[in-house]
Amino acid sequence: MSNVNIVLGIDIGGTNTSFGFVDRAGTIITETSMETKSNDSVKDFVSRLHYRIQEVRVDLPSHHSLCGIGIGAPNANYYRGTIEQAVHLNWGGTVDFAGLIRKYYNIPVSITNDANAAAIGEMLFGNARGMKNFMVITLGTGLGSGIVVDGHLLYGNRGFARELGHTMVDPAGRQCKCGKKGCLETYASATGLVRTALTLLAERCDPSPLRAMSSEEITSKRIFELAQKGDKIALEAFDQTARILGMKLADAIALTGPEAIFLSGGLSMAGDILLKPTQQYMEDFLFSAYKGSVKLMLSGMAPGKSAILGAAALIWSELDL
Amino acid sequence: MSNVNIVLGIDIGGTNTSFGFVDRAGTIITETSMETKSNDSVKDFVSRLHYRIQEVRVDLPSHHSLCGIGIGAPNANYYRGTIEQAVHLNWGGTVDFAGLIRKYYNIPVSITNDANAAAIGEMLFGNARGMKNFMVITLGTGLGSGIVVDGHLLYGNRGFARELGHTMVDPAGRQCKCGKKGCLETYASATGLVRTALTLLAERCDPSPLRAMSSEEITSKRIFELAQKGDKIALEAFDQTARILGMKLADAIALTGPEAIFLSGGLSMAGDILLKPTQQYMEDFLFSAYKGSVKLMLSGMAPGKSAILGAAALIWSELDL
Repeated sequence: MSNVNIVLGIDIGGTNTSFGFVDRAGTIITETSMETKSNDSVKDFVSRLHYRIQEVRVDLPSHHSLCGIGIGAPNANYYRGTIEQAVHLNWGGTVDFAGLIRKYYNIPVSITNDANAAAIGEMLFGNARGMKNFMVITLGTGLGSGIVVDGHLLYGNRGFARELGHTMVDPAGRQCKCGKKGCLETYASATGLVRTALTLLAERCDPSPLRAMSSEEITSKRIFELAQKGDKIALEAFDQTARILGMKLADAIALTGPEAIFLSGGLSMAGDILLKPTQQYMEDFLFSAYKGSVKLMLSGMAPGKSAILGAAALIWSELDL
Repeated sequence: MSNVNIVLGIDIGGTNTSFGFVDRAGTIITETSMETKSNDSVKDFVSRLHYRIQEVRVDLPSHHSLCGIGIGAPNANYYRGTIEQAVHLNWGGTVDFAGLIRKYYNIPVSITNDANAAAIGEMLFGNARGMKNFMVITLGTGLGSGIVVDGHLLYGNRGFARELGHTMVDPAGRQCKCGKKGCLETYASATGLVRTALTLLAERCDPSPLRAMSSEEITSKRIFELAQKGDKIALEAFDQTARILGMKLADAIALTGPEAIFLSGGLSMAGDILLKPTQQYMEDFLFSAYKGSVKLMLSGMAPGKSAILGAAALIWSELDL
């Protein structure tokens, strides 16, 4: 049997770390996950991760050959291979994460933030195949953005992610975890939707099952389920989220000129309830020369697979060069 | 005497068209201008332009060799070589301007909008020499933007300019000529400054020589002169302009990651009265990871020369390849 080249894709989150072996066609041959336990030292984490990888690797058929490792992680710096000031990972200031992995593996290792990995995944394995200019927006606890220009991820001068999530909606607006006020991700994200629903419960008088729930009980999933049943507060919460997201996507289009924008992450699973009004508002806010020229679509990668596929795509895109 | 390669840089405006012969070092050997008379047909315009170019060209020393023509024009499409829907040029929908010029000259011809030309000019002849990621903002009647990423102008999917001037400040805000409301250029431009001063005259009670002027008499230059003398309304108008510009520059930095932003155009001649507060507000609005990493400076090209130099730089940058 001929040799099959594969890569390892690793997605590091504050709670869980998942990884999988992925071939060039985007098939996940095997995958697993482990607790991140981010209070451990980063050296202990990498040692534990290596052990788990080896456990899985021995079960791979012998004709597989590992060519590279791609990593998606919060606050990763692509140029330096580092994870810097990641608030959900208690590893201190700047960690040379790619360097720590290279101590165990003598193959190419690359790291970037999760939204950038999602964008490369979309380009290699998802709905952006064949596109040169597009954007992936990850809507989860926060809002991440990966911007591809002329076929390359837009890193900017210092190698960090592009942060659409921290552009300004309202300087007197909601407190953001980044220290600023009024950032887009405080409105357009799973947590932003919940905050909008809470505001609407205060502002409006419509009856809603949301009124029987505590703030902590209200989740984006519950708001989605109620919106499907026609709940007025829930529907209005989606509409306000869509309006703010559509407005800021129009700004991002004016600056970077994509042919398509893909929504990814937990909140994007709301589908048309979010997608349709966002598209409408985006069109309304677009500069005339761009109207009708940008597609807004859902990601083409399965929600549970996109993180590993994105990390794998990162290293595949470099091995392809 | 050895041969000297030169290019022709042409800047087309609604009122005047200027052009000049420029060497690779950015020296303008000779320049002149003519009325655009945009009510004439575009064919008549190009014929008249060609005649004027020939008049100037015959006086050039014989050892100069013309290698290319670069053109800066409103609503120019770089990929197609066209000028499209330019409201200040009554040439109809889409004009193949590069094609019309090529009928007279059998050398490379390239066209882009004036802000993009300014950005390439800054890279070749101005303060962006050696930079790979930067932005030029032209503050005149409107607000234009040229964004350079990894050493290349960011055109996006369709070849038009990137339009920071038409990103959103306030959806319920000032009417813009583009048909939308609340675009950045209705606040941060020479005309935007005048509109802000008018609003302040309505909102505040401070005495000011501006109260003796009609709306048509108030210009950005007069507001600047009064600001230098400590006029409260004028100073506040600059401060509000700086705040909005600083906020939207912070958004643009989050999306494209430049190492520097250069202000150009008539309003930038206000210097520190605009530059200092804009820089302060920009820093305040920056996402923590970018704070302190982006320089805000004035253009390094002389205001009266930048349009011709930018157009010349456009074609030099292609001949260099």
